[in-house]
This record gives sequence, structure tokens and C-alpha cells, in this order.
Amino acid sequence: MINCQWDKKELEHHLDAASKRYIAKNNIQLYTINAIDLAIKVGMGKRTNTILQSAFFTLAKVMPEADAIKYMKDAATASYLKKGQDVVDCNHRAIDAGATAFVKIDVPASWANAEDKAKEPKYEGKPELVKMVKDILVPVDKMDGDSLPVSAFKDYVDGQFELGAAAYEKRGVAVTVPEWDETKCIQCNNCAYVCPHATIRPFALTETEAKKAPKAAKIVDVKAGKGKGVYKYTMAVSPLDCMGCGVCVGVCPTKAITMKPQEEQLDQQKVFDYCVSKVAEKPDMQDLTVKGSQFKKPLLEFSGSCAGCAETSYARLITQLFGDRMYISNATGCSSIWGGPGATSPYCTNKDGHGPAWANSLFEDNAEHGLGMYVAQKVIRESLAEKTRKLIEQPQTRPALKDAAQKWLDTMDDGEANKEATKAYVAALESNISTIDEAIAFAKSAKAKELFGEDGAKKMLDSDMKRKAAGEKYCGCSACVLAAEILKDKEYLSKKSIWIFGGDGWAYDIGFGGVDHVLAQNEDVNIFVFDTEVYSNTGGQASKASNIGQVAQFAAAGKEVKKKSLAEIAMSYGYVYVAQVAMGANPAQTIKAISEAEAYHGPSLIIGYAPCEMHSIKGGMIHCQEEMKKAVECGYWNMFRFNPANETGKFTLDSKAPKDGYQEFLMNEARYSRLTREFPERAGELFARNEAAAKERYEHLLKLVEMYKD
Amino acid sequence: MINCQWDKKELEHHLDAASKRYIAKNNIQLYTINAIDLAIKVGMGKRTNTILQSAFFTLAKVMPEADAIKYMKDAATASYLKKGQDVVDCNHRAIDAGATAFVKIDVPASWANAEDKAKEPKYEGKPELVKMVKDILVPVDKMDGDSLPVSAFKDYVDGQFELGAAAYEKRGVAVTVPEWDETKCIQCNNCAYVCPHATIRPFALTETEAKKAPKAAKIVDVKAGKGKGVYKYTMAVSPLDCMGCGVCVGVCPTKAITMKPQEEQLDQQKVFDYCVSKVAEKPDMQDLTVKGSQFKKPLLEFSGSCAGCAETSYARLITQLFGDRMYISNATGCSSIWGGPGATSPYCTNKDGHGPAWANSLFEDNAEHGLGMYVAQKVIRESLAEKTRKLIEQPQTRPALKDAAQKWLDTMDDGEANKEATKAYVAALESNISTIDEAIAFAKSAKAKELFGEDGAKKMLDSDMKRKAAGEKYCGCSACVLAAEILKDKEYLSKKSIWIFGGDGWAYDIGFGGVDHVLAQNEDVNIFVFDTEVYSNTGGQASKASNIGQVAQFAAAGKEVKKKSLAEIAMSYGYVYVAQVAMGANPAQTIKAISEAEAYHGPSLIIGYAPCEMHSIKGGMIHCQEEMKKAVECGYWNMFRFNPANETGKFTLDSKAPKDGYQEFLMNEARYSRLTREFPERAGELFARNEAAAKERYEHLLKLVEMYKD
Repeated sequence: MINCQWDKKELEHHLDAASKRYIAKNNIQLYTINAIDLAIKVGMGKRTNTILQSAFFTLAKVMPEADAIKYMKDAATASYLKKGQDVVDCNHRAIDAGATAFVKIDVPASWANAEDKAKEPKYEGKPELVKMVKDILVPVDKMDGDSLPVSAFKDYVDGQFELGAAAYEKRGVAVTVPEWDETKCIQCNNCAYVCPHATIRPFALTETEAKKAPKAAKIVDVKAGKGKGVYKYTMAVSPLDCMGCGVCVGVCPTKAITMKPQEEQLDQQKVFDYCVSKVAEKPDMQDLTVKGSQFKKPLLEFSGSCAGCAETSYARLITQLFGDRMYISNATGCSSIWGGPGATSPYCTNKDGHGPAWANSLFEDNAEHGLGMYVAQKVIRESLAEKTRKLIEQPQTRPALKDAAQKWLDTMDDGEANKEATKAYVAALESNISTIDEAIAFAKSAKAKELFGEDGAKKMLDSDMKRKAAGEKYCGCSACVLAAEILKDKEYLSKKSIWIFGGDGWAYDIGFGGVDHVLAQNEDVNIFVFDTEVYSNTGGQASKASNIGQVAQFAAAGKEVKKKSLAEIAMSYGYVYVAQVAMGANPAQTIKAISEAEAYHGPSLIIGYAPCEMHSIKGGMIHCQEEMKKAVECGYWNMFRFNPANETGKFTLDSKAPKDGYQEFLMNEARYSRLTREFPERAGELFARNEAAAKERYEHLLKLVEMYKD
Repeated sequence: MINCQWDKKELEHHLDAASKRYIAKNNIQLYTINAIDLAIKVGMGKRTNTILQSAFFTLAKVMPEADAIKYMKDAATASYLKKGQDVVDCNHRAIDAGATAFVKIDVPASWANAEDKAKEPKYEGKPELVKMVKDILVPVDKMDGDSLPVSAFKDYVDGQFELGAAAYEKRGVAVTVPEWDETKCIQCNNCAYVCPHATIRPFALTETEAKKAPKAAKIVDVKAGKGKGVYKYTMAVSPLDCMGCGVCVGVCPTKAITMKPQEEQLDQQKVFDYCVSKVAEKPDMQDLTVKGSQFKKPLLEFSGSCAGCAETSYARLITQLFGDRMYISNATGCSSIWGGPGATSPYCTNKDGHGPAWANSLFEDNAEHGLGMYVAQKVIRESLAEKTRKLIEQPQTRPALKDAAQKWLDTMDDGEANKEATKAYVAALESNISTIDEAIAFAKSAKAKELFGEDGAKKMLDSDMKRKAAGEKYCGCSACVLAAEILKDKEYLSKKSIWIFGGDGWAYDIGFGGVDHVLAQNEDVNIFVFDTEVYSNTGGQASKASNIGQVAQFAAAGKEVKKKSLAEIAMSYGYVYVAQVAMGANPAQTIKAISEAEAYHGPSLIIGYAPCEMHSIKGGMIHCQEEMKKAVECGYWNMFRFNPANETGKFTLDSKAPKDGYQEFLMNEARYSRLTREFPERAGELFARNEAAAKERYEHLLKLVEMYKD
């Protein structure tokens, strides 16, 4: 039984030859079932398993059909009553529907001789990456990783994998994907801003780029603001990378996006691929607004995170801002799973080959591991600065190189400015350093004799000849020696942006000792916490970020104590930049906090509210961003920024006074609402305490504004 | 060469026969030297090593004397110049003095036949303890522990040692010990309050007790307040347990204590031993004042901590308040070394055999370990409460037992009240439970037939006979069964006082993740941090409690960042009792904080400022308590209490506004002042920052008072 939306003819077309031969030769009874549409119809959304189970029992006849249906319904009641009667009803409808929804397919005799239309896929890109994709990614994706010989990994023995492999997966797992209506779109880029998988992206195109685009491209003028009258605009969608979460639909202010069956949208793949590979980035369209940030290439794409995941939306945004000079130390947890599965790297590079350097050590030492990354490059850069100062002092150093060196020194703590200064400095070093042959020619020249006398020039020539004989490539004068030493470490010249990523289980609990220790050191590192208020990856255990009344593993009767104030703990140091953000509630505040944190010359901690599949939000993760907004509006989550660099008013409360609707917010998520069914009285008490604690917290934040006013 | 204060005659008297024989038979050249008095004379205080070294080189003649003296002086200059020229000068004087201070002793021929006056010491006390002292403590104290066979430990295979062994050591290491002048004394008990080793203790005696006291006892009337006209008073000193720190001298307001050579005071040992073993505790003299607390028996005595140690003064005080119902989980560090050396337990028991149950796990899990102690007894007590409620419901339960049971239930969360209630409850259980023979007698009685009928009484009798045959000891009725079950766990009935002890290296750094996690759980545990602002036990590494400009291992050029605000971090939870104390600055505030913390039905954290040998305070640890006072007066350390149970004004700032003298305070401790010699410019800058941070902190505390006003 194959679950598909195909009729018999389409099945004939899509089914691969090997399967056809196997079915025909083994006389296998074949059925199809369209559980996908059926699930939507009965209210199960994307969950097809109950329908398939019911169909299986009817077909397999391992017990009388009526008994099977009764047992399945009883099991569904037992499993889901805690989540509400409506969920139980949906499951019962799915069981009834599944029992009759299959279609018998008569297998044509011709299938026994079906022929393979062997199509070796053509992979384009960096050769090392293509090799890794062919040798490892493809077999692993086919669940055939066990067949790989040890020798397949010989190029990766130190654990380093190529970036960007996820783009080769093209899993095509979404049933429906966004269709963009260019006529309704106001080009706000909200859809791209929230997309967890970077599969919907705006592009600004020149006339020429627009003309060369595939036919299916929908290209319009830039309607307003930057680039108006200069560029064309399109919103490209990758149907084969999209997870179908629909978050983009939810945030579109003009209903310019609708979800359509993936197959109908497959012609958009070419458009997306063209835009990504052929359309140049337009720096003049890029800035730190929600809209402008989305014209930057995401350096995290097509990860394996759940559909609608808020964590990847935050992480993707950060890579758009600093990905080309970013180091990431990642805690164990969801973010290490979607961030670094072996051979399927979703972190990728820009056209210069620059992208996030990513690593994961242990659950409990991630902050320290990230601090080590920082300290290592700080020590190397301090030594490079020392050499640069000496280089400037050398009389032989040419003025252009001196200028470039000084500019690099002047900007060495400023990430953005140092990026350009480093490029210029490296170019100046490379063009000013003399090769050993140039040095020999100079020593022989009249100029050398004029400057250093006959004897001096002779000595110089002797020394240069010896160097050449010893295999040295560069001139042996002090300036050239310094320049060569600096160039040897040129990859460390530019200021890096150090990020330490992890979830609340890591930051609030298991790795908290390290988080605290690293913040205390007053070094320039940035910590981003994906706060799902629960251990998501390990199966939903309560963390100290979980809140009163929340049901989780180890808190089956609702958590007793309130959420820990990690932000306030960090603020107690006085020299730590601290922010709480919720991108769905205030996307601009999120960018502001991330930019301020990165620019602050000291430790930073940003805690991002991240609704999660584990929260069981009513209607599903399509409402992820909307749920953040609700959380902030009712005061469940507070947004603020504590900036030690702000001489006046270090603490800014970005959340408005809470509106009503606190209990409604809790009831919208089964992580809370289930308690009302399991322990109704206790639920009432805990939820009241939860709300009271939130009110108290907001009052406290107001007092902090007052306290940090001057 | 023997270092002693003895002349030839005294040496003849004191030296043991085995040594005499060995010296005489091996024709050993014998010298004495009184480095003790000499060290005091040249300004080295108790440090005799330099004098002895110098004497050794002069006597041994391994090199010309003048060379040896020059080398030693150069080495002293190199080692101590960082600590100041005065320290160097002292050492040079000691080297000069040591070179000639020895005295040649002509060994009498009679020594070859010296006879042992074998005196097997007589140990009194609990037999198990005496056995452990003889079998393990005595050989270990003689540095002969390696000679012990494995079988010596067979009674301690689970790691449990008897409490109170330290009292058998009588090490007699102090050169001078306090002499108490009963005429000058105003009986404030300050000396006992600060004593790190519990070797100076006030006693209130009845007439009879006073009369039976050894002759050397100095006994006067109670001069004022409680006990006046009722009791006699003495301040007993234990010369053989005293470490000679002199802290008691420093805190005496009337100069009633002077330090005298130990040997002169040896007659006081009997007085002390008499008071400890024969004088009854006087509960009517005990209360929560500085004075009243010292009439309670310390349950931590004669530990191996350094002379003048502030840690043991705090710990001793806590045992006086709650020691008879205390569990201690101890972090690794100084407090685990002085708290639990194998076989030399300084924690001890009162006359009922109750004393602190002490254990140490790992450096990094101490808080969790302590929480486990709490949770274990909580679970057992909840089960006991459940059984007690059932017991009350049984019709057979007699009224007196019901009353006692109810009183136990009513007080079960209140440590002090529950202590007496438990005693009464256990007595009631024991006297009300029927033995199986009593039950049989009752079943045979007319009363039984009257109450339960002929058949009922018969059934009862049959059942009781069966129980007896099966070896059961108690009556099988539901009330007696419950009572027997409760009695089985009677040691868990009374509410315990759970304490988690450790230093700043543990609480601020290595164990901080656990401290935070335990505080977050909102359970009734008490954490006391001995804050020496440095890893004392492992050799002086900087911790996050170290302050700006402090010189330590890993901070050789003075620590860069300010002290972490552990107290404020704990306050962020809102439901944690938090206090900072400094007993030398305000002894009453210290007792208040400790009592409030213990009474609070939730987690508590007390951070005690603990000057340490490592601070190199000018003049030595005799000034320990005085240094705390200075620290608080200049604003280096702040005292406060945050009590969540206080509905109005949770936060109380107990420190007054800082006076001048901040830099003088820093300069009084070589952990700071040495930086002025090593890095004078940096020292100035860091010390100014240290003072500025202290000012800012006090301002911040004032704001907290305001913030938590309602």
C-alpha cells in the first residue's frame, strides 16, 4: 500500500522501475491510499499515521475488522483525551475513514520488465563538497549509511565536513508549499524573515538578471523604498527544500502567499536555483531592518529542524547578519541536531567561501568551548597586532602598506569595519611583499648601491642568494619577513563574531555553570539561547526555564516553581549585555538586540522565545510566530534589553504593559491545557500562580527601568 | 637539634626514654635551640623555620658559614620583597640570630639505659569511639598510619566513623594560650563566640558543680542578666587543644585575656575537662544572643583548621544552634579537610548522643548531594506523617498517644518545636504499643469478650498466637502495627536541619551550577558559604569571589574583573532567603541571619566573609575578626538580609554607609599590597576600580532597599 496523491496513471509514471519489477515478479497485491488529503479533510492536518494504521488492519485482516476499529478507537481515546475531546474525535474520524480509503491496483504484466531510466544526477558546486555529497550524503540519505566503508571518511578524519551539503538533499517532504502572488505582495519580506528553512527568499535583480531568469519566474518592479527604479524584485520559493510549515502564510499582511500542492509548484525550483546561484547580492538593498536583512544570503539553509521551528528562524537571521565571519560553538540539543548532522551541513558559505565555522563539544561545556574559540583567536590576533605595529615601524615598509596596516589596527575590535580593512590589508601585504627574485634584482640595482653603498648592497645580495638557495620564497628584509609572518595567519586577521548557541536545557540547567563562568570573564562572546522552556530534543523534560503549571517529563502534575530569571542573573554582573526577544512579537527589536549584542565589546546573552512542536499549540506550528506575539501581549514573555554601554538608561523594557488574555494564552497550548483535564483543581491554582508571577515580573521590570535610569 | 624552650634539666625531664637511648647508643651530637622565643623577638611571630635553617647550616658546615648566610639572605630577599621590606628585614634578623642560637648538650652516659615510664593513656567515653581512637587515630597521629592492617578498618567499611575523636588528640601545638582574668571579665562571651577551635568556653555552674571543680578553676558569680544569683560562672580554656591564634584576645572588650606560655597553663586542662564532662548544660542561660549562644555546647571542636580560621568560627556557631539535629553536606575544600579528616572527626555529639551527620561527596556535586539528604528524609517523613494520620484514626489508639501524634504532626515543619514533640511522640508510641504477650493476655480477658464477643475474642486470640509463633514481637492490631512501623523509622521523625557547607571556589565556581539548581528547587535546605575570596585549600587560585586587583594564582597581575554577586543571583529567584554576614563586624546580625535562614521554609543562602591565612593580613590571623569589622566599615564587604517571608521590606541592609579608609584596608592585606610593589601603576588603577565598584555596589544595595520596600 503506497500513500500518495496519484491516480493509476500517475502511479505508472512516478513509480521507479526496480519497485515495479519487484512487485510484478513477486506477485504482490498493490494498493494506493491518499491519506494526505484525507487527513486534512478529517481535521488531522499533516498527521496521516492513524488513517494508514486503520487501512492496514482492514487490509491485513489479522483480526475481525470491527474489533480492530474498536481497539484503535479505544487506544486513541486513552492516548488523546488529555489533549481534548476534539483531538479524540479527529482520530476516530480518521480511523473510520482509513478503513475504506484504499484503492486496489491491478499490476500490469509489463511491470515485470520495467526498464530503468538511469539518470545519474548532476551535482554542481565546489568539488570537495560534491565529492562529499556523492560519497557520503547520498548513501546516508538513502538510509544506506551502514554500507559505507571506513575509507569513505578518510578525508574527514579530523571531524571537519564541508559546509552547505544540505542544499543537495532536496527532500521534497512538504505536501503543500507557498505560492507567491506578486500582485498582492507589498515586498515587506516578513515571510522570508520568519522562514525556519530559508526556503522563501526575496531577490533584487538587475534588468539583465531578470531577463535571464527561467520562464516560471514572477518578476516585478521594486515597489517602494531602496532599489525603487533600480532593481526588479522576486520572492523565490524552493518547493523541494520547503517543509510546508506555512509560517510565512501567517505573517503575510496582504495574503499574498497561499499553500499549494508541492507538485504544482515544482517549476519554481528552477527559479529559486537560478536566483541563488546567478543573481548577485545587492549590498545597497541590505540593512538592519526586517526588510533589508532579508536581502542578505542566509548561511543556514534547509536544516532538518521541525516544520515551523522558531530556533532556526533566529539562527538563520543571525547568519544573515554575521555569518561570513562567525564562529559557532553549539550545545548538544535540537540545535546541534539541526545544526550539524554528519555530512548534511545546513550551515553554508557565501560566494567568497566564507561561512560559519561550527562545532559541538559536550552538553555541559559548550560555553567554555565557545570562550576557548574566542580566546584562541584573540591571542593570535594580539600577536598579529604586535607584528603589524612593528611592520609599520620598519623604514622599508611602503606608505600604502603602512596605511592599510594602520587602518586594520584602528578597526581591529569593530567587526564590520574590520572586515573591509582586513581585505585591504591582506591585498597590501600580498602586493608589497617582495619575492626572493625581486629582492635579488633590487640588491643588484643601482638604487640599492645608492641607498646602502657598494658593500651594503653586496652583503644584501649575498644574503638573498643564500636565502634563495635555502628555498625561501620571500625577501629577507625585516619588513618582508614580518609581512610573510602576518600573511601566514591571514585567516585570523579579521575580527570574528563568536556565538555560543544552545537551548534552555543547556543554558538554564546543565551548562549554566559554564554560561555563568563565561559571562563573568568579560570577554567579547555572544550567547544565544533558544528558549523552548523544555528539553525539546531529549523528549520534553522540564528545565528551569519551564513555567508554573507546565506539564513535562519530571513535572507530570505541572511544574511547581516559576521560571528562572536567567536574564536577571546575567544582569547582576553589570558588564554583560542582556536581552530577551520574541521575533514574532517584535521583529525589529530582535534585530536591534542581536546587533547591539554583537557590537558590544564584552559578553552578551540573548534569550529568544522559541515556541516548539512540544508546546502543542492549537492549530500547529503554522501559528508559531503569532503565538510569540500573543505571549508578549499577555505578559507571558517579556522583551527587554540591558546594555552596559548605554551611559543613561542601561535597561530598556520593550514590552508594553500586558493586556488581558493570559489564561486564554495558556489554554491555547496543550502543554498547559492538558493539566485542566488531568488535575483540574490543581491546574486552576497553578495557572493563577503562573499569571500572578508574570504580573509580578512585569512590575519588577518596571522597577528595573527606574533603578537603571542613571 | 631539638627546638624547645627547655633548659638542660627540663630536657632531661621531658625527653622520652627511647630517644635518650637512641641518642646515647649512637653517640649522636645533641643541641637544643629555643627558636620559639627567638622568632617572637626578631618579629617573625610563630614562624621558626628561618631560624632553624640558619642554625642547621652553621652546625652542619656543608659550606662556609658566611656563604651560607649570604645565600640565605639573598633567597629571603628574593622570596619576600614582594611582601615588603619589613618582612625581608625580619627574615634577615632571623638568619643572623639562628646562626648562633643553639646550645650544645652533653649527653649523659646514663641515657643509654634510660627506662620507659610506660603510661598507657586512659581513654574515657563511648566504647566504639575509644576503640576507634586506639586502633586508628593514635597510630595515624603518630604518622604511623601506613602500619595499620586492612582489618583495622573492618568496622568502618561503609565509610562511617565515630563522631568526636578530635577531642582525644590533645595536640598541644600552641606556644601560648589564653589566660582568663576573672576579675576583669564582664562575661560577654565574645571570646568563645569567635574561637575557631572551641577551646575557650563559658560555663554556668550550680553551687554543687562549682564546689566539685578542680582546684585550679577560677569560678565567680554570674555578674549580670540571666542566671545572676542562680549560677556561678567560669571561662574554661583547653591549653592542649588551643591553636594559640589569639583571636579571643582581640575581641575582649576589657583585656581580661592574655596569652601565656602553654606549659604555665596546663593546670587549666583539668578544669576544662571537668566542665565539659561534668557540668550540665543550662538551657535557661541559652538563647539566640551572642552571649546566650555560647552556653550551648559546640558540636564542632578542636578541628585541624589554621589558627584564627574564620570558617570554623562560623561552623562552630551553627552547630551550637542546630547541631543536635543537623545534616551537613560538605564541599571539597578547606572545610572538608578540617571537617572530616579520616578518623579524626571534630564534629561531635551532645550528651544524648546527637550531633551533626556529616558527609562529603565531590567538589562539583555538593549542593545536589545536600538536596538529596533533604529529599530522602522528606520522603520518609511524609510517609511517617501518613502513618501517623492513620494511627490517629484507629479506634484502638489511646487518647494520650493521639495527642502526642497530633502535636508531632502540627509541628512537623518547625525544627525547634518538633524536637520536643518528637521526644514525646516516641515515648508515647513506646509506652502505648502492646507486646504480643500483652495482646494475648487481652484477648483472653473478659474485657475482650465484652467488647468483641466470644467469637471475636477467640479469633483475636488465634491470630495473636499465630503471630507469636511467627516470632512477631508486637500486637497485630492495626494501631500497634502502625506504631511499630513508625518506631522503626523513629530517627527520621524529628525535623532535621539540612546544611550545605563549602567555600567560594565551590559556591561561586565549580559547584555553582549545583548551588543554583538546588536553590531553584524551593526546598528547605540551608547553604553556608565560607567566602575567603580565593581557593584556599588548593593553593590560592582566584575564584569568581576574588576581587579587582587581588593577587592570586591565575591572577598574578591582580584580578581584572570584579567579584561576582552570588547573593543577588540567588535573590533573583524571589523565594530564596539570602544573607551576607561578617561575624567580626556584627556578631548579632550573624546569629540573626543564621536563625532566620534556618527557620525559613525554603532554600537559604548565607555568605560569610571569612578572612584567611591566604590574605596575609598585617600582624597575622589574630586580627581576623577585627579585619572583618574594617572590611564592613569601609564598604569592602556588605551585610544584608533578603527574607522572602517578610511581607513588607524583604531586603534589609545591615551595613552602614561606608566610612573612609578603603585603600588603607586593601593595603593592610598583602594579597592586595604586594601588587603595589610588583605593578605599581596597574595597582593604583585596579585599586581605584575596586573602590569604585564597592561604592557602586553600596549605591545599588540602597536601591534594592527601595525596590523591595513593598
